[in-house]
Amino acid sequence: MDPYRLAVLGCGTVGAQVVNLLTEHRNACEEDAGRPLQIAAIGVRDGSRSRPLPTSVQQVITEDIETLSQREDIDLVVELIGGVELPERILRQALESGKDVVTANKAVLAERGEELFAVAEHAERAILFEAAVAGAIPIVQSLQRGLPASRIEALTGILNGTCNHVVGSMEQGSSFDDAVRAAQDAGFAEADPQLDLDGTDAAHKLALLARLLMNRAVPFDVIPCEGIQGIAPEDLAYGARHGWNLKLVARFLRHSDAAALGVYPAWVSQQSVLAGVRNEYNAILFEGEPFGSMMFQGKGAGGGPTAGSVVADILRAARGEGTVPKARGALEVRSFDSVPGQYYVRFDAPDRPGVLGRIAGALGENGVSIATVEQPEAARNDQARVHLLTHPVRVADLDSALRELLQQGVVCGEPLRVRREDIGGAARETST
Amino acid sequence: MDPYRLAVLGCGTVGAQVVNLLTEHRNACEEDAGRPLQIAAIGVRDGSRSRPLPTSVQQVITEDIETLSQREDIDLVVELIGGVELPERILRQALESGKDVVTANKAVLAERGEELFAVAEHAERAILFEAAVAGAIPIVQSLQRGLPASRIEALTGILNGTCNHVVGSMEQGSSFDDAVRAAQDAGFAEADPQLDLDGTDAAHKLALLARLLMNRAVPFDVIPCEGIQGIAPEDLAYGARHGWNLKLVARFLRHSDAAALGVYPAWVSQQSVLAGVRNEYNAILFEGEPFGSMMFQGKGAGGGPTAGSVVADILRAARGEGTVPKARGALEVRSFDSVPGQYYVRFDAPDRPGVLGRIAGALGENGVSIATVEQPEAARNDQARVHLLTHPVRVADLDSALRELLQQGVVCGEPLRVRREDIGGAARETST
Repeated sequence: MDPYRLAVLGCGTVGAQVVNLLTEHRNACEEDAGRPLQIAAIGVRDGSRSRPLPTSVQQVITEDIETLSQREDIDLVVELIGGVELPERILRQALESGKDVVTANKAVLAERGEELFAVAEHAERAILFEAAVAGAIPIVQSLQRGLPASRIEALTGILNGTCNHVVGSMEQGSSFDDAVRAAQDAGFAEADPQLDLDGTDAAHKLALLARLLMNRAVPFDVIPCEGIQGIAPEDLAYGARHGWNLKLVARFLRHSDAAALGVYPAWVSQQSVLAGVRNEYNAILFEGEPFGSMMFQGKGAGGGPTAGSVVADILRAARGEGTVPKARGALEVRSFDSVPGQYYVRFDAPDRPGVLGRIAGALGENGVSIATVEQPEAARNDQARVHLLTHPVRVADLDSALRELLQQGVVCGEPLRVRREDIGGAARETST
Repeated sequence: MDPYRLAVLGCGTVGAQVVNLLTEHRNACEEDAGRPLQIAAIGVRDGSRSRPLPTSVQQVITEDIETLSQREDIDLVVELIGGVELPERILRQALESGKDVVTANKAVLAERGEELFAVAEHAERAILFEAAVAGAIPIVQSLQRGLPASRIEALTGILNGTCNHVVGSMEQGSSFDDAVRAAQDAGFAEADPQLDLDGTDAAHKLALLARLLMNRAVPFDVIPCEGIQGIAPEDLAYGARHGWNLKLVARFLRHSDAAALGVYPAWVSQQSVLAGVRNEYNAILFEGEPFGSMMFQGKGAGGGPTAGSVVADILRAARGEGTVPKARGALEVRSFDSVPGQYYVRFDAPDRPGVLGRIAGALGENGVSIATVEQPEAARNDQARVHLLTHPVRVADLDSALRELLQQGVVCGEPLRVRREDIGGAARETST
């Protein structure tokens, strides 16, 4: 049988491990693929750099990345470059010239996915992206293949390993900046971790999951998205005193043909299965019929876990799998904001008599009922730190009360608010 | 395209839900299967009983179960009868007469699997059994397809929902008997829950997982297997004071071409991801390269979760998937006993001065070093309850010391011992 000829584009941590896995497990891979596999090209930006690759592939390294997507002796392009513009061009060219494609790039798929899926469909080629969501966890495959007679009503993901790692370090007492550096040192965060920390990366992945769940095009720009940049160790300490861990969650909730989507930091009970997801781990909890609730947990970052999923996709492509069904129109995206929730709010207030009273008054006038209010330490620079917990409220009411207080100078600087969610706890487990 | 014609054998909770799922989600199922699906027969023991089935299938109900496996107008036999002898005969006949088969029956596969796999291979038919292990969790599919370039070194499963439910009830203070009745009332435990409680059911599932992991025939009879029958609420209370939960674990540890296998109750840290697996939930934690560690958690029992996995298998069979690779010889099964471990031991001793000293002495002479010993309550009937925790020891040394003490009358009745395992804890997660 003719070999299936791959070009691996991008040879950083993930790319090198993909090449090494395919080489080390060649027999098992070819048995699974049902045909011989050949690494025909490895495209890199700088060909002069030494790389930990088998000697057998050293002579196929090339700097001519763009040409690879059109070369006739290539059957599959594995895109591991990152970014949006260049990968989009490469993937499109590859599909148009009759190649299958595998990518670990959530950004290009979340922002340009429909165009690429359409090109793939028209060219009758495979487009596979298991590694783009939750690293090692086979969630894309499970949603595409495993659950045809199921209906997933809700999904909650911990989809960004960097944020989870940063929050974990802060729980141990690190400052935010030190925690980010620790994640970078451990190899999980990018040199510029902005897209991780502001929630964009998790939102990219949520968009892809929603695309698979609803079979509708997901307009990425309208997904409400908050990151963890405002979180401080004192907030996590507050949560710990209440039995809560903070997680950056990505949530999906089906509303008939529409869905609520959102990425935001949330308090989850320490009893919840989500609270046990630590360090760079990712998890996806889904609830529906007939399976009840199910959770997959695994490493969401790092070369090995990502490379494993890329290799699984390469073998699927070699077997002729990997089409994405055409979207049935665009998804109507709703926000979680209309669902009342309990909020923790932290801000500074002038250290004047009567300030707590004015805060309570303004909140009350806006329909926000306070459960507890604390001033944990003595005032400094004439400002007092305030920790406040509401009863369930609509976030719009809370925000307008906070805006009012900010204008009156009763709240100083941007307040932080974190929603309390009851997800994946024991109660949920027994009730579903 | 010709329809794919199914016979569903057995129409209890699972069978009825399979029929209903296929009927309700007909379009999605047929799209996934790539061809029309037809429920051509439903085989039941008592055709006069009323069943919650769509009217469209009422006329295909038959009591002639055995003939179905040979009828020419059937393409797939779905076996949901349970037991070993009759299902083996039916599955063999179905395969030999050119039908694919789907079964949720771990007992027949663990005890007669190789014969059936060989018949399926010879007949070039599919044999699928996703629902036989861990209910809703797609573990069989994941092991068969998802991890060709991976190497799973260790696997720990909570594979029996009944045991997990019973232990959970006892943690809340129920007696063992009441806890078993509660599991039966909740619909998880069989009328005769013996095979659940004594670990046999978990061992059946472990044998199937080991077959898939090693691609070797697994001699079921040699898998060391202990159940939870000896566990009492006082033991669980002891564990709770030490921060431990008791779980019936099924473990696999690769030793080159051999593997250690075992089913036994173990203490796991309350910080461990396994401790959070509650009620009738199942979980499978696997560790290896390149993915690190990964855990799937979901409902392991109940009609809906099991039926969902059966339907997924039906659709795979319709697509022509579902062969089991021939075993490369038999697996050499080792026991976990040679690995030293810390043990909790509970027994009664005569309430005489010096007894604790004699116990400590006998244990010491056998090389068993004691970490703590407690006599939690006043003696009754001249017997004192003793709770003992060892330092890491070989279980053979512990057992010979306990035998000696039993012969000397210093230990009365069969002692209970539970091993402490460090699995799935935070430390493990960071180190892998």
